[in-house]
Amino acid sequence: MKALVYVSFKKTVLDPQGQTIRKALVGMGHHSIAEVRQGKVFEIDLAPGTERKQAEAEIGQIANDVLANPVIEEYRVEIVD
Amino acid sequence: MKALVYVSFKKTVLDPQGQTIRKALVGMGHHSIAEVRQGKVFEIDLAPGTERKQAEAEIGQIANDVLANPVIEEYRVEIVD
Repeated sequence: MKALVYVSFKKTVLDPQGQTIRKALVGMGHHSIAEVRQGKVFEIDLAPGTERKQAEAEIGQIANDVLANPVIEEYRVEIVD
Repeated sequence: MKALVYVSFKKTVLDPQGQTIRKALVGMGHHSIAEVRQGKVFEIDLAPGTERKQAEAEIGQIANDVLANPVIEEYRVEIVD
């Protein structure tokens, strides 16, 4: 079983890295780029035999406690397979 | 229109950052975590009126030339809206 955790800044938090990428792209002639925000994605392989319900609970806890900072970041968990 | 670009190391490339996260999680008692790989996600807003076909071509080019290093990374483009 595999889990994907997407972590990105909350909409209300400035993302200077994304702004820099946007400026660079516009400078390269990509004038249709209005905004860029950069986030992280964690691809987590779970040990064989892990149950889906247990995986959902465990990955949700890991995302909230370790992978994301809930003060400034939001996350989305996706369980695949 | 919005585009999502997912960038991650190729499977053949070592991901020390992911390995460190895995070790930390196992150390915290999450023994079901077999592997962690970390990637990046870029959320790109396109100017209103951009056509889907043009957006796909432009974002594909940006992903290949700027956002990912095709030597060691693979990427996936998703156009939404």
